[in-house]
This record gives sequence, structure tokens and C-alpha cells, in this order.
Amino acid sequence: MAASEFDIIERYFRRHAKQRDDVVLGIGDDAALLQVPPDRQLVVAMDTLVAGRHFPPQTNAFDIGWKALAVNLSDLAAMGAKPVWATLSLTLPTADEGWLENFTNGFFQLAGRYQVELVGGDTTRGPLSVTVQVHGLVERGKALRRAAARAGQQLFVTGTLGDAACALQALQAGGEAHPDLLQRLNRPEPRVDFGLALAGTGAAAIDISDGLLADLGHILDASQCGATLWVERLPRAPGLDSISDAGALACQLHGGDDYELCFSVGAGQVEELTRRAQQQQLSITAIGVVDSQPGIRCVLDDGSTYTPQGTGFDHFRDTSDD
Amino acid sequence: MAASEFDIIERYFRRHAKQRDDVVLGIGDDAALLQVPPDRQLVVAMDTLVAGRHFPPQTNAFDIGWKALAVNLSDLAAMGAKPVWATLSLTLPTADEGWLENFTNGFFQLAGRYQVELVGGDTTRGPLSVTVQVHGLVERGKALRRAAARAGQQLFVTGTLGDAACALQALQAGGEAHPDLLQRLNRPEPRVDFGLALAGTGAAAIDISDGLLADLGHILDASQCGATLWVERLPRAPGLDSISDAGALACQLHGGDDYELCFSVGAGQVEELTRRAQQQQLSITAIGVVDSQPGIRCVLDDGSTYTPQGTGFDHFRDTSDD
Repeated sequence: MAASEFDIIERYFRRHAKQRDDVVLGIGDDAALLQVPPDRQLVVAMDTLVAGRHFPPQTNAFDIGWKALAVNLSDLAAMGAKPVWATLSLTLPTADEGWLENFTNGFFQLAGRYQVELVGGDTTRGPLSVTVQVHGLVERGKALRRAAARAGQQLFVTGTLGDAACALQALQAGGEAHPDLLQRLNRPEPRVDFGLALAGTGAAAIDISDGLLADLGHILDASQCGATLWVERLPRAPGLDSISDAGALACQLHGGDDYELCFSVGAGQVEELTRRAQQQQLSITAIGVVDSQPGIRCVLDDGSTYTPQGTGFDHFRDTSDD
Repeated sequence: MAASEFDIIERYFRRHAKQRDDVVLGIGDDAALLQVPPDRQLVVAMDTLVAGRHFPPQTNAFDIGWKALAVNLSDLAAMGAKPVWATLSLTLPTADEGWLENFTNGFFQLAGRYQVELVGGDTTRGPLSVTVQVHGLVERGKALRRAAARAGQQLFVTGTLGDAACALQALQAGGEAHPDLLQRLNRPEPRVDFGLALAGTGAAAIDISDGLLADLGHILDASQCGATLWVERLPRAPGLDSISDAGALACQLHGGDDYELCFSVGAGQVEELTRRAQQQQLSITAIGVVDSQPGIRCVLDDGSTYTPQGTGFDHFRDTSDD
């Protein structure tokens, strides 16, 4: 971009520099120079949001900045890692100052909550796209892994499911989304603190970005297990009451973008984790059990089998390889 | 993308996984889990290439894959860091298998040379764009910094200057580029090994991605120094003989995309660095001296002042904040 445009961007991104002692060099050299404590392992995740695919074109810049960081922090939460640093590559059609101010306000509001420092990145001109990489730290051996599920463990999710998908359906139908659900679509809350509570428990965990069935499937595939899922127990926000029961269940089973955690733990961990969740004013809900038979068996409370319907909507997410 | 398309991409990117002992978890979980040795600092750089801005649209996929990694390794070279891990976010209009095979061949050919392991990333559908983040390691306190230049030091560059810009000019004029210069544009060689030789010498260094005058300016600004530049001593490849002297000099002073290193060192370091460069079959050329008067003074061998002409061409590069 032209120098003046770049200067504008520089000003917005450097606003919150030099906050952390472990950042030896942040923005402004050829690369950032960072200090990892000797007893910690480094956790890195990278996700890209493309306009029109990962967020509706009308999404405001604050929410795009928030969400670009949130989806990455959610990956760290699913590893039980404490977020520390981020890098940001922003591709923009034009350097619109109002847009940049809103975007960076959203990004840095969430970053500040977790003391995440932006340490580098790149700005280029082109179709709107945001790539964020986050770095987290975890005590050696305490990271949460998808492959840790074992038959007999209990399956849980944080929060409620299907909220973002229900909001997106309403927008795509040309209607208005319930404000609570719209908030969940545009400003997802990464479950960082609960991920930290899970670290070291031996839980298997994943964040739900592609839908419960798809993401639980990743845990089970990695762990060579199966599961029985109690579909009538899936936690549901009041906002979903306005659509049919079948529609709500489809959102809960297939809807991406809620960024809740799905995890499996041994029975001995449940009481303590329930207490930790309460401290964080977060609900956790038992949704089934891990067993040794491959596949996911959806059952109703009366014990009968439920056959999930196809996804039937575009949840603005691609699959991701990390 | 659809599952089948994603499976294709997964296959191509996982080909070279699990090569390094310090990768605890690579591609396939929510994030990568990595081990940084206690005596090392972490160096991270991120660069994005957008089709039509950072490479001509006709560039073949092998070269795009190579260059996306090369420009990032070049940032690590300028810090004196040893490359270890990379993440890749690839946004593609369609999952074309031939394109993906060529792209990953280029990426992994360069990655393999430096034992860099791809540990994660993201694949999305959209306008062609490639973001790579690289991680390097450097002994504590030995990283090269832009701010380390001091009056009295000698200024050097590796290799030759203006090659990529000269090739791009020919392409943009609708002609054919000299094959050696085209190779320099499409498959830049990051000076990783020479960066490692510079680490710990106290040199100031930068990689030349935006042109010598611009990038040397970054060193001098960060160091609060100036420089005298001997413009007739700038190293020139034979391929530049086909254009006018003034045109060649403009390419050397303003041309980006060569990814050579510009560095300043004390006189006591020069003999050893010259020996190390020779071992690497790399030329290094003295191009001026650092002094205390702000700004860059271009001089001819007869001592007269030379006034650089404007850049006059689009070098397919944006400015970068790391």
C-alpha cells in the first residue's frame, strides 16, 4: 500500500504494543523475538476468515476483528493453553480509517482480556481476508489432545449449542436474528478459562467450529472410540425456541461457529470441573458417553434411536487442518 | 470446502509431517504443540502473498509455494535465526489437484532444505492468497536487530541487487525476462545460512524486500544513524547488462524481491564473514559506511553526489510490519 496508508495501519496496530515482558522485540523488526519459559510447551494455531465465507458481508469491522482472534483463541482453549502472543495478516481492499479503527477496537478488546500481545504480521491490499496466528503456553505434558478419549468417559459441552447457526439461518433467509444469537455469531466467547481448568485432567477436547457431530467425530476418530449421544439433553439457548424442534436440533448437531468446547473426562473429574465451571459462570452439560463401538449413536431419552437430518445450511466455515 | 476437496488438500499437506523431534503434535489436532529449547529465543515472522500483487498472475504454482515460504525464511535470516516450523493458510478459488501438487512441491522442496516442518494452518475457499508464518530459534541475545547499526561500521549486501525487479519490468512490458533474473524473481534464495553466520556478531541486518534504499533506511532509522552509499559498487548480475546503466541502477536501489541481506558490521568482523560467505559460495560486497549524519548520501566513485531517480515500477510488494 502507499506509505500514507501504511502509516495509518501501523498507527492502529501499534497502539497496544509492548505489554508483555516475554516480548523481547515486537512489531517493527524483521520478525518478533519471544521468550518461552523453560517448563512450558508452545501451542500455535492459525485460522483465516474470508469475507462472505466465514462472516456475512454486512458484518461490522469490530465483530470481524473480534472474531478473527476469537476463533484462534478457541483453538488454544481446546488445547488447554494460556494465550500469550498473536500475529495478524490483514488483506484489505482499501485502508478505510473508520473500518480500521473498528476492526482494531474489536481485536484489541478481546486481546486485552487475555493479555495477548500483537507481535507482528503483514498488511496487504486485496480482497478482504484476515489471518491470525495465536501462540499459547502449556505446562509440559498437560495439553489437551483429541486422541485422549477412552470408553467409559463422560461427554460434556460448555454453554449452549446451535446459537450461531440459528442466527445465520435467520440472516440468510433475509430476516432478523434474535439479538442474543446474533451476538453469539458475531462475538463468540472462546472458552479459554475453562480450557485452562481442563488442562492436566487428561480430558480429550475440541472446540466446536464445524458442528457437534463433525467435531465430536474428530475426537472419536483420533481416539479410536465411539459414543452414545443424548440428543434431547443438548443445551439449548432460549433464542432457539422460536424455530421448530427439529430445526433447533439440526442447529445443535450441525451448526458451527459456537466455539464451545466438547470434552470427555473420567467420572472422577466431573465434580471438580462442575465447580470450576460454576466459578466461571459457565454451564457444562453431560451429553453422552464414550464407548468402544465406532461411530456416534444418537438416542432419545426413551432409549430410541434418532437419525440426524442433513446439515441443510451453509455455516460459513471451511474445515481446518489444525 | 467440500469434504472430498479437503481430503485432497490434507493429503498434500501431510506428506512431510512428523520429521522433527521438537514437534510434539503437528497437523491434526486443534493446534500444534512444540518444544522450544530452554536456551533459545523464539523468532516469528508472517507474510502474505496475494495473487496479482506479490506475484504475477501467470506465476506457476511451484514458484508460488516456494516463494511464500522463501520470503518468510528471509525474515528469519535477517534475524540470524534457524528455521524450524511453519504454518500455512492457503485460500484457493478451487481445489485443483495439479495446482496443489505443484504448489506443495515448491513449498516442501524449500522446507526440506532447511528441515522446516509444516505443523498446522488453514485451508479456505476464496481469491488466491497464501499466508505463511515461520518460527525460528536463536541463542539468547544473539538475534540480529535493525537498531544495531553504529557510525563507522561498514555496510554490506549479499549476492546481487535489482535482479528480480529487472525481470518483473521485462514481464510487465510484455517481453521475456532473462532466465537467471526470472529465477531470482520466482524462486528467491533466503540467505538463511549467512544469517546464521551473522548471528552473535552484533551486526544490524535486514532482508531487502522493498528495495535497498527503503530497507537500508529502516536500519538507519531504527539505529538513529545515516550512511554513505557507493552506488557504483552495488553488485550487479550479468543479466542487468541488457538494460541502460540508469535503469539497472534504479533496479538496484529501488527493486524489491531480491531477498538479499543488507547488514552493517564493525571492521573487525569483515575477514571472518568474508570467509564464511566464501564457504557458502555466496558473495558479499561492501557498499558504503554508516555515519552519524541522518539520511542516505549516494556517491559515485569520483566522490560526486548521485541523486536517485524515483522508483517508477510496481515491484509487487506491500510494506510489511515485521
